[in-house]
Amino acid sequence: MGVDTRGTFRELSFNHRFVQWILWRAGNPRIAVRLWNGDEFRLTDSRPVACMELRERRAALELLRNPSVGFGEGFSAGRIEIHGDLLAFVNEITAAITNRNANRYYLPKIGSILHAMRTNSLSRSWHNVHHHYDLGNDFYRLWLDERMVYTCAYFDTATATLAEAQRAKLDHVCRKLRLRPGQKVIEAGCGWGALALHMAEHYGVQVVAYNNSHEQIAFARQKAVDMGLDGRVRFVEDDFRNIDGRCDAFVSIGMLEHVGLASFSTLGAIVKRCLKADGTGLIHSIGRSYPQKPDAWIVKHIFPGGHMPSLSEMMHVFEPHKLRVVDVENLRPHYARTCALWLQNFDAVADKVATMYGDEFVRMWRLYLAGSSAGFQSGTLQLYQILFAPPDSNNVPWTREYQYAGAGRNH
Amino acid sequence: MGVDTRGTFRELSFNHRFVQWILWRAGNPRIAVRLWNGDEFRLTDSRPVACMELRERRAALELLRNPSVGFGEGFSAGRIEIHGDLLAFVNEITAAITNRNANRYYLPKIGSILHAMRTNSLSRSWHNVHHHYDLGNDFYRLWLDERMVYTCAYFDTATATLAEAQRAKLDHVCRKLRLRPGQKVIEAGCGWGALALHMAEHYGVQVVAYNNSHEQIAFARQKAVDMGLDGRVRFVEDDFRNIDGRCDAFVSIGMLEHVGLASFSTLGAIVKRCLKADGTGLIHSIGRSYPQKPDAWIVKHIFPGGHMPSLSEMMHVFEPHKLRVVDVENLRPHYARTCALWLQNFDAVADKVATMYGDEFVRMWRLYLAGSSAGFQSGTLQLYQILFAPPDSNNVPWTREYQYAGAGRNH
Repeated sequence: MGVDTRGTFRELSFNHRFVQWILWRAGNPRIAVRLWNGDEFRLTDSRPVACMELRERRAALELLRNPSVGFGEGFSAGRIEIHGDLLAFVNEITAAITNRNANRYYLPKIGSILHAMRTNSLSRSWHNVHHHYDLGNDFYRLWLDERMVYTCAYFDTATATLAEAQRAKLDHVCRKLRLRPGQKVIEAGCGWGALALHMAEHYGVQVVAYNNSHEQIAFARQKAVDMGLDGRVRFVEDDFRNIDGRCDAFVSIGMLEHVGLASFSTLGAIVKRCLKADGTGLIHSIGRSYPQKPDAWIVKHIFPGGHMPSLSEMMHVFEPHKLRVVDVENLRPHYARTCALWLQNFDAVADKVATMYGDEFVRMWRLYLAGSSAGFQSGTLQLYQILFAPPDSNNVPWTREYQYAGAGRNH
Repeated sequence: MGVDTRGTFRELSFNHRFVQWILWRAGNPRIAVRLWNGDEFRLTDSRPVACMELRERRAALELLRNPSVGFGEGFSAGRIEIHGDLLAFVNEITAAITNRNANRYYLPKIGSILHAMRTNSLSRSWHNVHHHYDLGNDFYRLWLDERMVYTCAYFDTATATLAEAQRAKLDHVCRKLRLRPGQKVIEAGCGWGALALHMAEHYGVQVVAYNNSHEQIAFARQKAVDMGLDGRVRFVEDDFRNIDGRCDAFVSIGMLEHVGLASFSTLGAIVKRCLKADGTGLIHSIGRSYPQKPDAWIVKHIFPGGHMPSLSEMMHVFEPHKLRVVDVENLRPHYARTCALWLQNFDAVADKVATMYGDEFVRMWRLYLAGSSAGFQSGTLQLYQILFAPPDSNNVPWTREYQYAGAGRNH
């Protein structure tokens, strides 16, 4: 404990104990803390993974009022500084909080139900997507892989780079869908078009891909022309609720998180209407191991309108329409690594981003990427790939060996 | 339409139309019908897959009152006879009914919820299990494979026999659990001990296996002695609710169907308590693609107290305890084939079974096996294998290639 020879022992002790209590509620992470008055302490006897500096008393009050928003806004504004490795710090905090809440189930579940009552109308969906994805293609190009894939990669080898792992993810999805030349594919929420273009280029299918982000669709259309694939891929700037037509495969990567639980059954109805009797579908989404509302800071600043469903909640897409769930794969560690690599890339261009959007934006995004990685590492977040088929379809291989390159024993 | 020269047209027409209406409610299956008065007709223009003879008017009235129980009891007692292939007939009827009910979701779901309120106490569980599994080991030995595995087999090649597919299933489960010599495994609901003995013999693990069927446990214990494995496998005659100890792997094959939805969370709590922090669990169970109560005839005569859960219902095991679902595989077509092969074996020894239990028992069991096969074929039944881990475990391979022999690229 530091000693302030001019201050009273009482005041020093109060600040110290106050912050200590806030951090006790967060599960006593192994960190050091430095206060605005220079006082410094650690919470446990273990070696601290990093030091959190609260530069103003206001930061401590904000942490008290709303830990998640208080930390996020305090860090973004520079009232809170992390000395040491940001990702290691966030991993430690997330694990401590998760551990502390290990036995809480019903309260988070009620929170999830209340949160889920919020319906994302067409216009609200547009606003939500605009908020995040229309930041500008130039921004995302700085730190995503060359294909601009902004979802969980698939590290099928220990040495895969981010670009290799994103390509492996696209192929993993295509193999699961067993795409064959000439088939028709509908994609809901196509981002910058990487999967749609990959399917058309390497699997010879016709794709209609929907997205309601104007910037992304413009980028994808230009890329289709550049790649000579504009005859095989049609990019539609529209909401998934306006999807029509019939297809052999329906795929949606990283859209369900933005749909909102109240519209899950609507998505299922659309899928059922589109999918041919012998078709296959795949939905890939961030999820939870149990129902929980999203982090308050993430909702306020990063993804308004999002909901990461547990598996039982995801079944609202499938069960009302009797869609047959064939295979669920949880790729959680892959997303922890993906986000960690995005953070590395982002850090390398942080100065450039700062000139475009300012320091506060950079700090906010660093926290968002580190926090996401930590969520997947600690298990507060999961990544589910769900393969499904129409109710009475038997057009599904007997084993899953076809998903693994070179293993293909056929039935 | 047959003509009865002595009867009145009105009477003939009434019987005919009455039965036709009953079968219209069942979705107009492509079958022929013969009535007690010799009148014969078909329901559609298509070639009938078999002919259903109603030998007494009572059979028609019973079909009207309760289609499932009426058919089951009528067929068992011989008031209803099927001319032609029983499995083909049941497949046709099941597909027709499924198709007819394709848009019903909320009514079955409410039925499922009401059914699920029934709690299986320890004594009722014992009674339920006794009813089915204590029919006698000699009975099951007549038509099961040599290992006495009475759950879904895994046909990893197109030519696998039932015995080969049962062995492949045991290995598929063991590979998913990544068993290593010296590990401790707890098995809940071990049947005649095939998996427990296989794990100990081929994977070098220590197994404690629970089952509350006296006949099965006695058989399994003797087999352990015969195989020299009684030092490595301990068979406990007790309910899963009394499981204790810690383990590296928790496995349960074909027990959840008997647990009842009200006790799912209890099972999850036991699993969580038993499983070490880096452990892995697997639950294999018959399920549904959407919530539905079990078939009335099956509950009355074959499996009292059973409930086949949808995936959202199965999550009651995992989500309250934050267990992390890692992988779900739907093996539905494998169970259709397994049941069809059991029916073949059963038919080959039907005379012998008749001398043991009588004709009515034989007819009941033929219908049960054919109906089960048809359920999996048509999609009214599913078979889920769910692999899971403790909440914050990262002790899970990055890809699922380890599940497929010879594919093992390791991370």
